[in-house]
Amino acid sequence: MNTTMQYDLENAWTISETAFQKDDQGKCEAILCLGNGYMGVRSSLEEHYTNQVRNLFVAGTYNQFDHAEVTELPNAADLTAMELRLDGEAFNLETGRTHHYNRSLDLKTAELSRNVRWESPKGKSARFDFRRFVSLAELHTLGQKVSVTPDVDADIYIKTGIDGTVTNTGVQHFSEGEKRFYDKKYMQFVQTTTQSEIDFVLTTGVQVTIDGEPAQAAPFIAMDRRQLYCTYTIPVKQGQTLEISKISYVATSHDLAYAHMTVKEMQAACLARLKEQYAKGYDALQAENAQKWDELVWSEIPITVESENKFDQLAIRFAQYHLQVMVPAHDARMSIAAKGLSGEGYKGHVFWDNEIFTLPYFTYTQPGVARSLCEYRYLSLPGAHKKAKENGYAGAMYPWESAGLKDGETTPVWGAADIVTGERTKIWSGFIQQHISADVAYGVWQYHMVTGDDDFMAKYGYEIIFDTAIFWASRLEHDESDGLYHINDVMGPDEYKEHVDDNAFTNYMAHWNIQKAMEQYTMLKTENQDIFDRLNQKLNLDAHMEAFAGVLGRIYLPLPREADQVLPQNKTYLDLKEIDLTKYKNQKNVGEMFREYNLEQVNEIQVSKQADVLILFLLLEHLFSLDVKKANFEYYEARTLHDSSLSLSTHAILAADMGDSTMASALFDRCAKIDLGENMKTSDAGIHTASIGGIWKTTVLGFGGVRMLDGKLRIHPALPDGWHRLHFYLYWQGQKLSVEITKGRVLVQNCTGTKPVTLSICGKVVTFQDEFDCICAKP
Amino acid sequence: MNTTMQYDLENAWTISETAFQKDDQGKCEAILCLGNGYMGVRSSLEEHYTNQVRNLFVAGTYNQFDHAEVTELPNAADLTAMELRLDGEAFNLETGRTHHYNRSLDLKTAELSRNVRWESPKGKSARFDFRRFVSLAELHTLGQKVSVTPDVDADIYIKTGIDGTVTNTGVQHFSEGEKRFYDKKYMQFVQTTTQSEIDFVLTTGVQVTIDGEPAQAAPFIAMDRRQLYCTYTIPVKQGQTLEISKISYVATSHDLAYAHMTVKEMQAACLARLKEQYAKGYDALQAENAQKWDELVWSEIPITVESENKFDQLAIRFAQYHLQVMVPAHDARMSIAAKGLSGEGYKGHVFWDNEIFTLPYFTYTQPGVARSLCEYRYLSLPGAHKKAKENGYAGAMYPWESAGLKDGETTPVWGAADIVTGERTKIWSGFIQQHISADVAYGVWQYHMVTGDDDFMAKYGYEIIFDTAIFWASRLEHDESDGLYHINDVMGPDEYKEHVDDNAFTNYMAHWNIQKAMEQYTMLKTENQDIFDRLNQKLNLDAHMEAFAGVLGRIYLPLPREADQVLPQNKTYLDLKEIDLTKYKNQKNVGEMFREYNLEQVNEIQVSKQADVLILFLLLEHLFSLDVKKANFEYYEARTLHDSSLSLSTHAILAADMGDSTMASALFDRCAKIDLGENMKTSDAGIHTASIGGIWKTTVLGFGGVRMLDGKLRIHPALPDGWHRLHFYLYWQGQKLSVEITKGRVLVQNCTGTKPVTLSICGKVVTFQDEFDCICAKP
Repeated sequence: MNTTMQYDLENAWTISETAFQKDDQGKCEAILCLGNGYMGVRSSLEEHYTNQVRNLFVAGTYNQFDHAEVTELPNAADLTAMELRLDGEAFNLETGRTHHYNRSLDLKTAELSRNVRWESPKGKSARFDFRRFVSLAELHTLGQKVSVTPDVDADIYIKTGIDGTVTNTGVQHFSEGEKRFYDKKYMQFVQTTTQSEIDFVLTTGVQVTIDGEPAQAAPFIAMDRRQLYCTYTIPVKQGQTLEISKISYVATSHDLAYAHMTVKEMQAACLARLKEQYAKGYDALQAENAQKWDELVWSEIPITVESENKFDQLAIRFAQYHLQVMVPAHDARMSIAAKGLSGEGYKGHVFWDNEIFTLPYFTYTQPGVARSLCEYRYLSLPGAHKKAKENGYAGAMYPWESAGLKDGETTPVWGAADIVTGERTKIWSGFIQQHISADVAYGVWQYHMVTGDDDFMAKYGYEIIFDTAIFWASRLEHDESDGLYHINDVMGPDEYKEHVDDNAFTNYMAHWNIQKAMEQYTMLKTENQDIFDRLNQKLNLDAHMEAFAGVLGRIYLPLPREADQVLPQNKTYLDLKEIDLTKYKNQKNVGEMFREYNLEQVNEIQVSKQADVLILFLLLEHLFSLDVKKANFEYYEARTLHDSSLSLSTHAILAADMGDSTMASALFDRCAKIDLGENMKTSDAGIHTASIGGIWKTTVLGFGGVRMLDGKLRIHPALPDGWHRLHFYLYWQGQKLSVEITKGRVLVQNCTGTKPVTLSICGKVVTFQDEFDCICAKP
Repeated sequence: MNTTMQYDLENAWTISETAFQKDDQGKCEAILCLGNGYMGVRSSLEEHYTNQVRNLFVAGTYNQFDHAEVTELPNAADLTAMELRLDGEAFNLETGRTHHYNRSLDLKTAELSRNVRWESPKGKSARFDFRRFVSLAELHTLGQKVSVTPDVDADIYIKTGIDGTVTNTGVQHFSEGEKRFYDKKYMQFVQTTTQSEIDFVLTTGVQVTIDGEPAQAAPFIAMDRRQLYCTYTIPVKQGQTLEISKISYVATSHDLAYAHMTVKEMQAACLARLKEQYAKGYDALQAENAQKWDELVWSEIPITVESENKFDQLAIRFAQYHLQVMVPAHDARMSIAAKGLSGEGYKGHVFWDNEIFTLPYFTYTQPGVARSLCEYRYLSLPGAHKKAKENGYAGAMYPWESAGLKDGETTPVWGAADIVTGERTKIWSGFIQQHISADVAYGVWQYHMVTGDDDFMAKYGYEIIFDTAIFWASRLEHDESDGLYHINDVMGPDEYKEHVDDNAFTNYMAHWNIQKAMEQYTMLKTENQDIFDRLNQKLNLDAHMEAFAGVLGRIYLPLPREADQVLPQNKTYLDLKEIDLTKYKNQKNVGEMFREYNLEQVNEIQVSKQADVLILFLLLEHLFSLDVKKANFEYYEARTLHDSSLSLSTHAILAADMGDSTMASALFDRCAKIDLGENMKTSDAGIHTASIGGIWKTTVLGFGGVRMLDGKLRIHPALPDGWHRLHFYLYWQGQKLSVEITKGRVLVQNCTGTKPVTLSICGKVVTFQDEFDCICAKP
């Protein structure tokens, strides 16, 4: 594939784009995006191009445009655009000649830079350097610096400001508020979301220097509809460097810090704060940002891989970078969206991707952040209750797509064109993809087991597990003919199978959820009367316990069929028609099958979008033998198109578990390349948080062999061929562990060392306070 | 000035763009726009460029986005975009090489065509021909045809459909409704305005042929958010021609024909109607369109100029073309917007531009259409009453900016940046530019005098004149000190003077309005008791008549000052500071003064945006002597920047009246070039209906010397040097007159010939039924 992507395989810190390709803008906008969990800025270029998608999102600020649409993360006014002209000719890589082009994201410093040598159509040339960051040190701050060094004397024209005409693919979420200039240097724009009534105050300051001296020219200031900007026309001599720095400050009335101010007070406070940041200047602010990245990530929880393919190290850092960018660690009222803050895809909604694919990283490496993500699910219980009630169930029925705390279900109802009928396809996930409630409970339970955070459980965790179990008990359908409880008319993880009965994953997870609730009930009743009484009063646990006990043993749990040990994904899957899937297994882009079949037809074929039975084996691995896992891996891998980014890492981990190093490596590589690969079309709607979480999961849980099993830590590495050393950190029960894996050896050190840890390493259960060095046969 | 515009001075029928300049797109989008009064389609190109403005407006379908904004004409989904690729490379005039480029609007056939020879960056070339029309024969129909003839065998990719992501500068006025395909050939998109709840149903059909034979390839159909489209990839051999034709049908639930259907019924009806149009094919549909243009305009009411500057003939046809495109002749619930249907400027609102600048054309040439425009003001009386009430006055206080019938005032409150304070400038017109109410009455009176349409007056016209007079009587302010009535704190036509007292234009027009009402009262009471009784009962005329009589003689009417005969524009104007205006009189773009002064400062200088006292001389010309007019022309022309498109034609007509042929010609030329000239930045927000009406006014009222004076027709030509012959048609009292003016002679023929007409030609009052041939000294 002809690609413009270049990966720094020497130091494994940078991802570069080596040429501008207008058709491929979405890729780099997303994978090179900047953010800090509070806000995300898509890396569209300073100059405008058609097909660009300019996004500035502030986490948690959902707005519903109208009743025909679901709530979504609104695209705030653009701060990054700059129009530049060289002696009247617009800097535009589609015109003139580009003699050099390089755009790089430095994962270590979280700074994006672009260096271009461009010659205008009339033959005037200049060097253009662009730098940009979103600060992890000061979450509201965005910095930009542009320098232009012309090869001849030239007038440089600059136009930059705040542009509130941007939309979410044509949907405008904001009412325009006040816009104004201060001192011909600072600009401020107020916009308010139309339904959720969140005020956004965007403030920016521009400074122009020539060879370090302030430029004399005063800007011309102007306002248009939803826009304000200043323009400069500055004569620059050959070899001089014109530098424009622009520091911006973003705040909203949804922010805890600003929630109690009037808009006028916010405007004043933001201007004051912007002035402070502006006074520090770009370089100092970026230094603070890089320093914070080092403190939180690169020095604190680095992952080191010595692999023959240096891309692996880069992929893992890429994953850690984006996991940090996407996570709203500052506020428990929000969680990780399916595309993080990198694009409009999935409208900023939170899926099970969080619990199953991204939460594990935080649970094991940043438990405080993981707690905040779990608290989000507690805080959004009102929405889960609302959904249960609307559907005639009890307890907490979590929305398939979750947004604001009280929104309930936010999955859109209509999707792509049905190529057979010409009508829109109905999206059933919001109605029938119900396993999410068990997934949430699982995430909470895993968080507790790994961290030992009893305070969280007391305040929030037990209640979530009880409340979801209550939902499941009300959801089960009793079948007179076999006397068992079934869960009919659902969608499992595999979204190519709608309206199925007894999806194995759903039934097992519902069973697990009720069982966990019953264990908790008994444990709390005997060990923690206070908590028990409070929750019993709130949820009427005694009554529910009786119901749980009445159903638990009679939930239908499908078993592997005798002949080949294949576990039926659902009641009918194994009887469906089989077709030759080779063409789609080798497809360039996901979903190519839908150019020939509609969903109704796909529903009748033995083909899966993503891991379904296999993810069950990963979450509840103690329930199934290795043989069963192997048989099913073989069966389902052949039938799985991996058309979802949630699929490959699960297959990779299972391949590692089963000792198939080649398959595991290949799947890991494909998983890493969902966003990072050479296909320039994958990431237009945003990066894939599930596969990014999956890179870490495959590395640490798969190759590192780390697993929490029934409350106990297990490390049983399975380094793939070509990996000579893997080193990472884990938090276990409050102790920070350093884990170093080389072929044949595992060295675990307790960096905290305040209490002994017990874990199973390569099959041996050991307890130690300082370090444990273990010879392992397998790795 | 470096320009890409080319005017056909041979036949004076086409306006062409000879090169694509991305920065200048707005100009041709607007001046080459297509429309039929029902809808307007801005002539943005098929392929997308940044800075493009794609507009499809349906007249009268106003929607208010939120309470912070005023209602506006919403930009409906785009039908015209087509992405074309030549062997994978996007057709894009910013890349590769353009060997030939010509885009022309044929005013005669109302068809837009573009011919391009383009070579891709990889060196493959093809001829691309584009044609487009909006049908005057079938108001809902839009046709497009594109042919591609590659110079080598090549795959041609086409993507086209319906794109509902377009906005009004970032404001989305629509909720997305159903979208679907029929037979993989027709597409339909439903969208509903968010506040006014008007359903738009857009239906389109695409046909692809190679050398006239249907292409075999089936399209791929797809939907995205607010979009649906089909794509084709078709191998075309060297020299073959691929032709794509796309016929679209636009309808709304606001249309009288569709108002009583459900959306589903509309969808079915529109699909059926589209299929009929589609079956006829592009060429037949365009032939119908051209035929209708000929019937309504070019054969019916052509204007012929034999001028040494052939541009004059083209300019007049350009004016007639746009007057037809802009006028919603089909429905009295709407009128002509300040930018017609050619751009988002002024939000589709109706100003006094209609009564004073565009209505006269229709009154004199298409009286049925003029009646519809006058009925609009009758139907919007509820809005005028609402505004009066809100402001504490009686009667009909027409909104400065008018939109829907019940909307009342729709002028936005905030404008451009104040360069001194950095804040937004407040727009006062909606509050204090009150002369509009008298202008509406004047337009109605003029319509009646010219057409003799007593039926209109009985039903609507008298009431408007009474109701506006009632407003003025309530608006007058009695001053104890001089015992007179004043009108204080207003803005006259000159918008550079806010909050002035006794604006001459306003006071005289208010006086005229009350006087006219009193004349009507007396006339109806004696001559038409039925109408009188009905209106007396409805408006309580007897009481108002007493009030009118009490104030009429005591309204303060400023007189020319003795020393120099200059009539003070307002109470303070002549005492304001004078500055050297040379720089601004020679400005390239309007409003350049505001780069140095804010409105508050401009308010204190003897400078006018536009004709103010002079427009008074035109409307009430019998009140002022030629000497007074000359003195004031000299005084105010020197102080008028013509920063408004409403200014030049008034000065041009007065110059013609005063016998200053050189000045009149120069001002006519400048007026014609507001849109048609070489300045590529004038028309971005849309064409200027007032200056387009002004082209006709200067030609017929100025050079032709046509005037309705006190109910009588006068023709006193003043052909400028270089004009050898001017021929036009007029309707006078139901008789169609042909007027031919050559130097020294006027020949008037009564084409209708059913009754005698009386008019004054060159000072002689004559009555004739067939024709009158007159030797005139002056022309």
